[in-house]
Amino acid sequence: MSGEFDLIRRYFTWPAHNAVLGVGDDAALLQPSPGQQLVVSADMLVAGRHFFADTDPVRLGHKALAVNLSDMAAMGATPRWAMLSLALPEVDEGWLGGFSQGFRALAEQHAVSLIGGDTTCGPLNLSIQIMGEVPPGQALRRDGAQAGDDLWVSGTLGDAAFALQSLLGKVRLTPVEASMLCLRLEQPQPRLALGTALRGLASAALDVSDGLAGDLRHLAHCSGLQAVVEVTTVPVSEVVQVLSPHPLYWQCVLAGGDDYELCFTAAPQHREALSALSRQLGLPLTRIGHMQAGNGVQWQEGGQPVDWELQGFDHFA
Amino acid sequence: MSGEFDLIRRYFTWPAHNAVLGVGDDAALLQPSPGQQLVVSADMLVAGRHFFADTDPVRLGHKALAVNLSDMAAMGATPRWAMLSLALPEVDEGWLGGFSQGFRALAEQHAVSLIGGDTTCGPLNLSIQIMGEVPPGQALRRDGAQAGDDLWVSGTLGDAAFALQSLLGKVRLTPVEASMLCLRLEQPQPRLALGTALRGLASAALDVSDGLAGDLRHLAHCSGLQAVVEVTTVPVSEVVQVLSPHPLYWQCVLAGGDDYELCFTAAPQHREALSALSRQLGLPLTRIGHMQAGNGVQWQEGGQPVDWELQGFDHFA
Repeated sequence: MSGEFDLIRRYFTWPAHNAVLGVGDDAALLQPSPGQQLVVSADMLVAGRHFFADTDPVRLGHKALAVNLSDMAAMGATPRWAMLSLALPEVDEGWLGGFSQGFRALAEQHAVSLIGGDTTCGPLNLSIQIMGEVPPGQALRRDGAQAGDDLWVSGTLGDAAFALQSLLGKVRLTPVEASMLCLRLEQPQPRLALGTALRGLASAALDVSDGLAGDLRHLAHCSGLQAVVEVTTVPVSEVVQVLSPHPLYWQCVLAGGDDYELCFTAAPQHREALSALSRQLGLPLTRIGHMQAGNGVQWQEGGQPVDWELQGFDHFA
Repeated sequence: MSGEFDLIRRYFTWPAHNAVLGVGDDAALLQPSPGQQLVVSADMLVAGRHFFADTDPVRLGHKALAVNLSDMAAMGATPRWAMLSLALPEVDEGWLGGFSQGFRALAEQHAVSLIGGDTTCGPLNLSIQIMGEVPPGQALRRDGAQAGDDLWVSGTLGDAAFALQSLLGKVRLTPVEASMLCLRLEQPQPRLALGTALRGLASAALDVSDGLAGDLRHLAHCSGLQAVVEVTTVPVSEVVQVLSPHPLYWQCVLAGGDDYELCFTAAPQHREALSALSRQLGLPLTRIGHMQAGNGVQWQEGGQPVDWELQGFDHFA
């Protein structure tokens, strides 16, 4: 069986183009860009909770990094470096090769270097840290929304949640539909280009990782405002659209996790710029409501308030 | 039961004096010191492998951070920020309170801010990332040793390994002896003051986390040299000294993990400066050998080569 250091060398060491010193010492050495702020975040993924243990390892490698890149996108940051700590129940070279391939492909696509981490034996656990940079004062925080701002969301919501329902056998889909949704669940695309383009346009932003309901509550709380959402305007994919009579429809669309779209606020004067940005990126940006005095989230259907109890995902709720 | 966000707020949020934005957004925002290099490292600790699940949580919180601070010490870096990701099988408020207390006390002692992380449900796993700073060119790397350099080690070796043997019932100690060694196993003191003082003195350094034998092999390999160690000069505590007839003696002293002392090389011209530094820090610094052309580690006993097969700890060996 390969040893720990062999594993790191074989699967997790490739040229780190933007590091002074990468994998192989007690720590990595990095040279931050002069005058930039550092943006850092961490996510831990546990088998059986965040992903099925039999998930395709290539897709899992992609997703493990994607959810972290999504945090960079939500801050308007340019990602630069990642660290990966892995607990593995056993050494499965096929799995490691696949995981490494998926992780590396997405990292190289965004010029992110893997500069360190740890490998140990234990119940399957992926812990990733991501570091990026942003010009001072330009980070997209959660606390900057103003009363009167529009509320926007990128892409479509609910795909990943319905993919999970499909995998659990609770929703019937054609194989083509199922695979389209599964791609969204297992290979989310972090909205990095959108994030950096929103600098100077968005007043607040976060990524929709735990479901719109829960995440929006955080944004409203941090900004000291209420978010008003017209639910009929929330963008959904064609596959999900067809499922609208399903009893889980609103729960999946408004509170399903794993979408990794960006939700952000912007002054109404930026509507035209945002429409142009949407066309430029080839990514739908949809206005779903606005911010006003108050607190929490007010759902409306056709302009009428509805009293829905929607909860975002909470690992200990 | 408390939710994830309550847990983070209650146990893992305290003022982050050196962060632009700490816990609570998609990522933390940090302002690196102008002109400094960034030093980053990660460690993952798994219950049942790196620690007993019933370890005192205060000590565990200390140790989880200490092993990361030790990596900063080994690089000659000043630690500044930490991230903590926790997988917990259940919410045990007593455990969390203790863990948080031990972690925070050590963090504040070294002016390290906890600026983010993740909390999730799963088999107990502690994943920590540490970030520090060092002036460009002054980091203590593994690859800088020169032929003719002295080989040094701080403190004493083997205490933690014998503590583990004692906990496993394989060594008989008096209660006082056992508790002295357990303190070394469970509350290691990262050698941060030594690390920064070694800038400009040491040519290479690492921390002894997996055992001198394994770690020294890395230093020798990275520097393209052979390390020669006179085993009778390796410093041990009084408690361990008495155990020298024990069949595990050399294995524990030379290959036992968890010591978190620094092992470093320095030109002979620095001997006096290092003796003065030892007195100043109140920390033994002992010359245990030298570097020469070749590879691997050559153990000597009374000047005679001995052919000992000693292995450092490897999670997958």
